[in-house]
Amino acid sequence: MTQATQHQTQQTSATFKALKCKECGTEYEPQAIHVCEECFGPLEVSYDYDALRRHVTRETIQAGPNSIWRYRPFLPVMTDNPIDVGTGMTPLVKSNRLARRLGLKNLYIKNDAVNMPTLSFKDRVVSVALTRAKELGFSTVSCASTGNLANSTAAIAAHAGLDCCVFIPADLEAGKVLGTLIYSPTVMAVEGNYDQVNRLCCEVANTHGWGFVNINLRPYYSEGSKTLGYEVAEQLGWKLPDHIVAPLASGSLFTKIYKGFQEFIQVGLVDDKKVRFSGAQAEGCSPIAQAFREGRDFVTPVKPNTIAKSIAIGNPADGVYAVDIAQKTGGNIESVSDAEIVEGMKLLAETEGIFTETAGGTTIAVLKKLVEAGKIDPDETTVVYITGNGLKTQEAIQGYIGEPLTIEPKLDSFERALERSHTLDRLEWQQVLI
Amino acid sequence: MTQATQHQTQQTSATFKALKCKECGTEYEPQAIHVCEECFGPLEVSYDYDALRRHVTRETIQAGPNSIWRYRPFLPVMTDNPIDVGTGMTPLVKSNRLARRLGLKNLYIKNDAVNMPTLSFKDRVVSVALTRAKELGFSTVSCASTGNLANSTAAIAAHAGLDCCVFIPADLEAGKVLGTLIYSPTVMAVEGNYDQVNRLCCEVANTHGWGFVNINLRPYYSEGSKTLGYEVAEQLGWKLPDHIVAPLASGSLFTKIYKGFQEFIQVGLVDDKKVRFSGAQAEGCSPIAQAFREGRDFVTPVKPNTIAKSIAIGNPADGVYAVDIAQKTGGNIESVSDAEIVEGMKLLAETEGIFTETAGGTTIAVLKKLVEAGKIDPDETTVVYITGNGLKTQEAIQGYIGEPLTIEPKLDSFERALERSHTLDRLEWQQVLI
Ligand SMILES: [Zn+2]
Ligand SMILES: [Zn+2]
Repeated sequence: MTQATQHQTQQTSATFKALKCKECGTEYEPQAIHVCEECFGPLEVSYDYDALRRHVTRETIQAGPNSIWRYRPFLPVMTDNPIDVGTGMTPLVKSNRLARRLGLKNLYIKNDAVNMPTLSFKDRVVSVALTRAKELGFSTVSCASTGNLANSTAAIAAHAGLDCCVFIPADLEAGKVLGTLIYSPTVMAVEGNYDQVNRLCCEVANTHGWGFVNINLRPYYSEGSKTLGYEVAEQLGWKLPDHIVAPLASGSLFTKIYKGFQEFIQVGLVDDKKVRFSGAQAEGCSPIAQAFREGRDFVTPVKPNTIAKSIAIGNPADGVYAVDIAQKTGGNIESVSDAEIVEGMKLLAETEGIFTETAGGTTIAVLKKLVEAGKIDPDETTVVYITGNGLKTQEAIQGYIGEPLTIEPKLDSFERALERSHTLDRLEWQQVLI
Repeated sequence: MTQATQHQTQQTSATFKALKCKECGTEYEPQAIHVCEECFGPLEVSYDYDALRRHVTRETIQAGPNSIWRYRPFLPVMTDNPIDVGTGMTPLVKSNRLARRLGLKNLYIKNDAVNMPTLSFKDRVVSVALTRAKELGFSTVSCASTGNLANSTAAIAAHAGLDCCVFIPADLEAGKVLGTLIYSPTVMAVEGNYDQVNRLCCEVANTHGWGFVNINLRPYYSEGSKTLGYEVAEQLGWKLPDHIVAPLASGSLFTKIYKGFQEFIQVGLVDDKKVRFSGAQAEGCSPIAQAFREGRDFVTPVKPNTIAKSIAIGNPADGVYAVDIAQKTGGNIESVSDAEIVEGMKLLAETEGIFTETAGGTTIAVLKKLVEAGKIDPDETTVVYITGNGLKTQEAIQGYIGEPLTIEPKLDSFERALERSHTLDRLEWQQVLI
């Protein structure tokens, strides 16, 4: 692996102008930096919205590729040949069977459990980050990951021919480790939790000149999540929903969906509308939910202990911004137990045929909790964001979803097993009725 | 579960006319039957191609949904509201890095490892079969499966609210069992190989009135695979490729891609052209490759023994038709060892960032073998069909893809590990050079 050479950026076809501090507003050249030198606030990409309003229409977007890159003018890259492996434009599934079970009328699942290429929303942010990494001259890319990000960075780096080194906590699910190793990156398994992995990576980023997608490239990387806002608006027929429910890890996804909706309003692609933002955390790692519950404007770090490892960030970088958005839009932030998370995974699979990982189980369980508490109106057009695939977290449900009926390859063996299963079904129903 | 009630079929918006025997040409009403009463030949759906030529254009297709249902007039269903969970329109990836490794110039991967909802091409055939099952009045659907089909049938039945009972061999990969159970169907694990499972299901189909997607609904089901032909033609800019390579299990996929290309030629959507068809099998279950090698017009059943379980069909129903197509198009049918299959999985992941299951490893390994034998011209536009996802067959690569480097959350621990990995890389390179 070689050190990155930082090329001078050419702004010819770029619609983004600068990096701007979210706290004090200081502007910077769009290089591989992420923290304000004045106030240590996070940097964010700013765009020329007047130019966007003039040049981007519903028609120009629809004429683009069937991927996140149809929204290229809203993304912080300059090239007209971004890394496009079909990421994005995942189905927005009208979920009538789940809606009926919960007592809702207009429920949609935005299904990033089938996002390409590695089956989580991380493919969006990584596609953007690695495209930008190439523009900035990096030849080695890296990340601090809870699993999905490692899968995505390793896969897309392989496709793009970039060297790759990923950092994960040593206790990750087998599917996420294997689903990274297969692409032959260097994999560092750190004996510690995600927050320790992240701190180590901040040090490495300062010394090795690598492009860390979620550290020194974070301002570009995080913009990729805006596409989860754009796509929902477009798929609803260029309308915003009434209410969204999304998982909270660092809080970045939540804030960027919000930014995506605001940008579409600002450039006139959708009508202005207040969308309620509700967030989901696992009880075993719920610092943002705690801050929301207590009405605090700061987040107190916690030590994670939950099966929902992909969202187990104890010290969430964008936690305060997530709390702010939930408060000002009239949404809520709730947490659920590990048992409820498994039930959420089963509920979504049984009603909609969607197999999500623990993070998705968390979001469905919170959806259910919010409905039961009267915090989602049955008539609201509600969009639930499912962000990853259940094949990666098989450990979480082993022992909770029953077993096959083992039979001999003979008709009478089958008939006896079927009779047994009918009897079991009847007993289950009787228990329900009692 | 209840017995199916067979409604009278209304042919109003149907473009398909009848079921026709592939051997003797006898025609039948399009009901839930699959075998000719005259000669025991397989039945196939026939269409009114004159009507299709008049009504279907590139523009009408492009105006359709971004799923297999954009080709609805070519599919054997009557409804305008088919079960659409986003199946199909998977990426056709220009695979430059893999092409360079193999010495090819125009290589594409058709990536059904990310097909929706259950990450294999089976979602195509099941979407069609279950839509037709509903039209024919079935309330319980079933299948005999090597794994992927069980995942797909259970998931799409859950979404559609159909009762479901699937049959699998008892020794399937854990990911495929779990990826079925999560949707709460009845799962029968049969102590025997796929061919025994299939024979049992034929008996059950006769006695229970269920819609078995790949038995009594097989004529409709198998038509879904034609979309793998249509999509490639459309994604290449309404052109056919020069050469395709696809895995062979029952042989049905192969024959239906062929039928798809022929239909597009017949109705004028693409120019006529000879496409070479090459097929891939695992050595441990290669009855079709053996028949091809020996120039036979019959296939001798074998007992499967390979890690490529999803294509381990020892008595392939459409084997002879596959041999015929490979022969008449100037293609080949080859087989590879289990070790080569694992290498194929790694090669595709490292070069293109695509994590496929053992069946895909088989296809990539056969591609390599054909190129090395001079049986694929470097200039040919070659499309390789990848049909399933590697997260479902993790057992196959465990122990073959290395392990993470375990480190403490400290910079010096990282630096030492990185130095070790560089040394290992150098040693590997020295071995290559020696
Ligand atoms: Zn600042
Ligand atoms: Zn016949």
